Amino acid sequence: MTKPIIFLQREFREEFSDKIQAVAPDYQVKTELTEDELPAVEISVGWSKKFSEQLLTSDRLKWVQSISAGVDYLPLNDFSDRDILLSNGSGIHALSISEHIIGVLLGYYRGLNQSVKNQEQKIWGQDAIHYDQLAGKNLLVVGTGHIGQQLSKSIRSLGVNTYGINTTGHPVEGFTETYSIKNLSKIVSEMDIVVGILPGTHETYHIFNSDIFEKMKKSAIFINVGRGDTVHTKELITALGEKHIAFAALDVFEEEPLPKESPLWNFENVLITPHISGLTVDFQNKFMKIFLANLKSYVANKELSVNQVELKRGY
Amino acid sequence: MTKPIIFLQREFREEFSDKIQAVAPDYQVKTELTEDELPAVEISVGWSKKFSEQLLTSDRLKWVQSISAGVDYLPLNDFSDRDILLSNGSGIHALSISEHIIGVLLGYYRGLNQSVKNQEQKIWGQDAIHYDQLAGKNLLVVGTGHIGQQLSKSIRSLGVNTYGINTTGHPVEGFTETYSIKNLSKIVSEMDIVVGILPGTHETYHIFNSDIFEKMKKSAIFINVGRGDTVHTKELITALGEKHIAFAALDVFEEEPLPKESPLWNFENVLITPHISGLTVDFQNKFMKIFLANLKSYVANKELSVNQVELKRGY
Repeated sequence: MTKPIIFLQREFREEFSDKIQAVAPDYQVKTELTEDELPAVEISVGWSKKFSEQLLTSDRLKWVQSISAGVDYLPLNDFSDRDILLSNGSGIHALSISEHIIGVLLGYYRGLNQSVKNQEQKIWGQDAIHYDQLAGKNLLVVGTGHIGQQLSKSIRSLGVNTYGINTTGHPVEGFTETYSIKNLSKIVSEMDIVVGILPGTHETYHIFNSDIFEKMKKSAIFINVGRGDTVHTKELITALGEKHIAFAALDVFEEEPLPKESPLWNFENVLITPHISGLTVDFQNKFMKIFLANLKSYVANKELSVNQVELKRGY
Repeated sequence: MTKPIIFLQREFREEFSDKIQAVAPDYQVKTELTEDELPAVEISVGWSKKFSEQLLTSDRLKWVQSISAGVDYLPLNDFSDRDILLSNGSGIHALSISEHIIGVLLGYYRGLNQSVKNQEQKIWGQDAIHYDQLAGKNLLVVGTGHIGQQLSKSIRSLGVNTYGINTTGHPVEGFTETYSIKNLSKIVSEMDIVVGILPGTHETYHIFNSDIFEKMKKSAIFINVGRGDTVHTKELITALGEKHIAFAALDVFEEEPLPKESPLWNFENVLITPHISGLTVDFQNKFMKIFLANLKSYVANKELSVNQVELKRGY
C-alpha cells in the first residue's frame, strides 16, 4: 500500500511542509495530487468541492482539518457516518474579530463613520456629530466561544460590562453573567450592544429576528460577525427602518456578496463590511500551530488535541 | 464692599449653582452680570473675550477656572503679572479622546473607513481591503498628561506597547519607557503609531515637521488631537503626498474649520475629524467635580487642589 498522504488543499509556505514532515515522517506531504493518489489521502487540510466526492468514497480518509472556524459548509453527516475526525480553525481569528468589533463600536459612538462621509464632501460638520461613550455600556455576546471570550477580555478593559449567551447558560470566565440561549429575548432589553458570533446550525437559523429587535433598546447597536443566516434579514431591515434599534454593523449576510439591490446598503444607520472581520495577519503561523498540535497527537494515538468539532452539534 | 462674585460664563444646570453656593456661602453665584457687578468678580468660570478687558483691570479677580484643558488662548502673561490663579479642565476629556484614538486606529487597521466609503457606492470590495492588527504595535504618546496616560492604560490592554515623550523624559506610570522631547526625532523611527497630545506653547510650535515625518516608518500612522499648530501642516501634506507615512488622522488644525481648499480633505490616507475627539457625555458633572474641589480649597486657604496651571509654562 502506498504511504498515506497529508493533502494540503491550500498553499502554505515551504517551511510548514518541512515541519509537517518532521512530525509525521511516515506520511507523504502533498499540495497537488494525481487522480491515482487521491485514495491514499488520510488527512486533508482544508476541504473543497473539487475533491469532496472522491475523498468521501475512499476509506482511507480519517481526518479533516478545516481552515475556517465555521464548518457548516462541510458534509458533516458523511463525516459522522464514516467516523472521520474533524477539527476547525477556531481561535485564529479571535483577535482580529475582537478588534473589528471594538473598531465598529467606536466608529459609531465617536462619530468617525460620519466624519469619513463628511470628509468626502469637505463638510466640517461638527454640530451634527453623534457622540457617545463606550465605557460603561452593557454588551451581550451571543456565542461565548473563542471569539466571544477574546472580545469580552479586550472590551472589559475599556470599561464595558459583558454578558454572555450560550447553549446552556453555563458560566464562562470573563463574563459578568451568562444566560442560556432560551433567554435571549428576555435579556436583550437591558443591553446597549448585542453581538452575534454564532455558528450556522439548525438551532441558530434566524435567531436574530423581529422578536429580538423589537425588544432591544432604541439606542442599541446590533453587530453580526457569526453566520449570515443567524439573522432574519428582512426583519432586520424592518427594524432598522422603524428605528427599533439605532445602528447595525454587519460583516456576514444570508447572501454574499450582499446583492446590489439590498436595502441594507442605503441605511445611514448601517455599516456594511464585506466579511472582513476575520482577516488575520500571520494567518499561516496561527493555523499551523493548531494543525501541528493535532498532527502530533494524531500520529501518537489517532486523537486530536485541540479544536475537534462535535459532528452532531456542528461546532 | 459688595459680596464677591463667582461668575459662571457658561450655562450649567441649576443643581450646580446650588452646590457652588453651599461650598462658598459668602459669595454670590451669577451667570449674568450688569456692568456694575463686573468689578466684584473674584472667580471666573470660563473666559470670554467679551469680559476680558474689564475683568483684567479689576483688582478683585483672583482665580480663573478654564473650561478647556488647553489654555493657550488665555492672557497668561496678564494673569502672571497680576498673580491670578488659573486652573484648567484637564482630565475631563481623557476618556473621550482615548476612545477616539483607539477608534481611529482600528478604523484604519481593520479596513472600516474604507468600508464606509465602499458602502456609499455599494461596492463589496473585499479584495482591496487593507487589514492589519493593532495588538503588538508600538505607540508613542507625545505628551504624557491625563489624556496620554488614559490612552496608554486603555490601549495597553489591547496588546499595544506604549512609549511616552514629555519635557524632561521623567518616567510616567503605565509607559514602557519615556523620553525627553529632545529625543523625539530619534525615537519616532521605531514607532508604528505617533500620537500628538501636546499643548500649544512656544516649545511645541510646529514640532511635528518634515524632520519627524521623514524619520517615521513608511507604514506608520500619525494622529494629532493636541493643538493644531504643533503640526507643520505644509510639511505634513508633503509627507503624505510622498508617502513618508501611511496614514494621518487629524482632529485639530492650524486653521479651524479646516478651509475647503486644504489638500488634506482629498487624501485617501487621511481622516479628518472636526475637533470632536473631546466631545464628552456628562460633561457638566465631570467639570464640576474639578471646580468644586478647587472651590473648597480656595475658600479654605486660597489654594487650588487640582489642575492648577503653571502660568510661565503654559499648562
